[in-house]
Amino acid sequence: MALVVQKYGGSSVASAERIRRVAERIVATKRAGNDVVVVCSAMGDTTDELLDLAQQVCPSPPAREMDMLLTAGERISNALVAMAISSMGAHAQSFTGSQAGVITTSSHGKAKIIDVNPGRVRSALDEGKIVLVAGFQGVSQESKDVTTLGRGGSDTTAVALAAALEADVCEIYTDVDGIYSADPRIVPDARHLKTVSFEEMLELAACGAKVLMLRCVEYARRYNVPVHVRSSYTTKPGTIVSGSMEDIPVEEAILTGVAHDRSEAKITVVGLDDKPGYAAQVFRAVADAEINIDMVLQGVSKVDTGKTDITFTLPRELGPVAVEKLMKLKTAIGFSEVLYDDHIGKVSLVGAGMKSHPGVTATFCEALSEAGINIELISTSEIRISVLCRDTELDDAVRALHSAFELGGDEVATVHGGTGR
Amino acid sequence: MALVVQKYGGSSVASAERIRRVAERIVATKRAGNDVVVVCSAMGDTTDELLDLAQQVCPSPPAREMDMLLTAGERISNALVAMAISSMGAHAQSFTGSQAGVITTSSHGKAKIIDVNPGRVRSALDEGKIVLVAGFQGVSQESKDVTTLGRGGSDTTAVALAAALEADVCEIYTDVDGIYSADPRIVPDARHLKTVSFEEMLELAACGAKVLMLRCVEYARRYNVPVHVRSSYTTKPGTIVSGSMEDIPVEEAILTGVAHDRSEAKITVVGLDDKPGYAAQVFRAVADAEINIDMVLQGVSKVDTGKTDITFTLPRELGPVAVEKLMKLKTAIGFSEVLYDDHIGKVSLVGAGMKSHPGVTATFCEALSEAGINIELISTSEIRISVLCRDTELDDAVRALHSAFELGGDEVATVHGGTGR
Repeated sequence: MALVVQKYGGSSVASAERIRRVAERIVATKRAGNDVVVVCSAMGDTTDELLDLAQQVCPSPPAREMDMLLTAGERISNALVAMAISSMGAHAQSFTGSQAGVITTSSHGKAKIIDVNPGRVRSALDEGKIVLVAGFQGVSQESKDVTTLGRGGSDTTAVALAAALEADVCEIYTDVDGIYSADPRIVPDARHLKTVSFEEMLELAACGAKVLMLRCVEYARRYNVPVHVRSSYTTKPGTIVSGSMEDIPVEEAILTGVAHDRSEAKITVVGLDDKPGYAAQVFRAVADAEINIDMVLQGVSKVDTGKTDITFTLPRELGPVAVEKLMKLKTAIGFSEVLYDDHIGKVSLVGAGMKSHPGVTATFCEALSEAGINIELISTSEIRISVLCRDTELDDAVRALHSAFELGGDEVATVHGGTGR
Repeated sequence: MALVVQKYGGSSVASAERIRRVAERIVATKRAGNDVVVVCSAMGDTTDELLDLAQQVCPSPPAREMDMLLTAGERISNALVAMAISSMGAHAQSFTGSQAGVITTSSHGKAKIIDVNPGRVRSALDEGKIVLVAGFQGVSQESKDVTTLGRGGSDTTAVALAAALEADVCEIYTDVDGIYSADPRIVPDARHLKTVSFEEMLELAACGAKVLMLRCVEYARRYNVPVHVRSSYTTKPGTIVSGSMEDIPVEEAILTGVAHDRSEAKITVVGLDDKPGYAAQVFRAVADAEINIDMVLQGVSKVDTGKTDITFTLPRELGPVAVEKLMKLKTAIGFSEVLYDDHIGKVSLVGAGMKSHPGVTATFCEALSEAGINIELISTSEIRISVLCRDTELDDAVRALHSAFELGGDEVATVHGGTGR
């Protein structure tokens, strides 16, 4: 008998009819002899409707009250799924995040899970019940207030519960049937991946793959919880995210896929003194506004002026705030101007195979060059190459790379390439 | 500085605009120098929508899950009101029933409040905050599960909090501006009552007056919490429910008003053996189905057969269940038939003045007789007379009694009458 944690997204529980379909799958899993813990997101548009109501009563709602409001959504969907299960003759019990022992920090709206005390969940399982847990929410350790985990929070709840309960697998049900070698909407022959290592999935998530959120993958990797990403509309297997890439034999290590991201903007601070501490002041100003930056490039100092430029990328919605913060420091730090560009796209190639195959960078740049795409900035990790290009060229870039590395079709892609990297 | 508990009903918080209006009133109460605790019902139709969803996923949903589902409604409205208050520059903090220390029995859907531990509410008040508490809900002492209090539960939450906090007054905001001598929709010159004693209000609530639920009044009486029933659309004073009728000087004791109720049905068990224990078996059968009966009449035994009839009234929606239970016992108990009548109405006259004024019953019966209304069943208490009539005659009965006892107009009604009672 296995212990299975299942997570269903908002579209999977968007109507009474879909809730009944989800309940059927849950009951079937239970009747196949498994213990089952289920985490549901709020139904379809519930969260957006609640956000809209909040906006109508208060332009900038207090975060604590926002969490009290939004957590109602998961409470509703979980209770309804429990009811649907019981109408099929199985026993179900739903818990709020707090009741399920999901202890978090007290940063409302973006709390982090500190600990999971699944005592009540375990007792209910021992009584033979199917357990429902409201996702995306917990209770703060300090103030005992209701908190939410931010975007992708229900996935993280599911993985955290799976870790605490030492579950055999955490199944994430969504509207796609797994991870692909590229977004199938852009690349029609994108290949469905059977398995992806935690490290590769981390890179893909960080580079814009939307299926799993970064925090959820980090949690799964830390506690070694195998995650099965699959569709709630079919029964065919999805993608298993598990294992370290260190354990993949070199000859089997491949290039996993191409990810893309249109959510970033680029800022260039021009004419900064090229002396110790000046770049740090720029990044401190951005960090103090709680903005995470992604790619960074510092140009070579110009001989005649002793000045340099710093370019970095950041989430587009925070771009205006960052520009404003920097402009306030113009005199203090001493630079000539701030350039802002929100028409950029980022394309990344990810794969454990990159370590063992020379020439990947060369092939990468050649492919983009042949497609007439100019590289504006480049950054790499051990298993990833990312570049910035124009946002209008992003789809072409994804297709060019996917094709150059032969990632498509039913065949397993292998790495070809020239020399160097 | 006073401590005021305010309760707003579902129609008062049915939209973002109404929520803002409610928030204005709350903030004004706070700025007038009071400590304020607010209990809100769920927004307008939320509860009905959730009930409908539940019905769609499960024909007979488990009560525990139903409570988990329905409590989301109050959570939403309370968080929204807290946000609206904060947008007006005041500090608000919302609590669930559980967080506010509302401890209940574990009968899901109709839990009773056992105790209120308002520690967190008190602390927030001490910090100068306006406190919002989700009505209608609590946490069960035994299982720590979320419970609901049943109909009128938010009023009871407000009164229970007022009692625990030793508040100066509990204000119940609704869509009418207080208690009237009769339903103004039926009796246009019904008089607005400035004060009503707890006992009179108990009788009125038990006889169908919808403004306050019986349990709420019982709670207020037990803990001696003055309740101010008023409109959320005006600032004029409503009706104060407080004090014992024992404290009303005899010369000031009046007839309070006429209540009516169309929610009951009548069952007659015909041809029952008139021997000890047979009537008890009838009432035990009904009680075992958790049905509360109201009026009871046992006829005089017929000399020739030694048989008798028993008539009683009960909530109409439970009529079919009661008939079914009784028919199953027909052979065991031994009666000839069960008659069911759901076209009845009940009209009641209530007032502390009844004790000291003779002839009320006679005037009562004369008034109905003159209006051509037949009395089908009569029951009385120290301060109440109730009769059953045809449901089609109920409005006429209310008007006839209201007029006969001169309860209308701006004048304070006094009691006239003949002899006896």
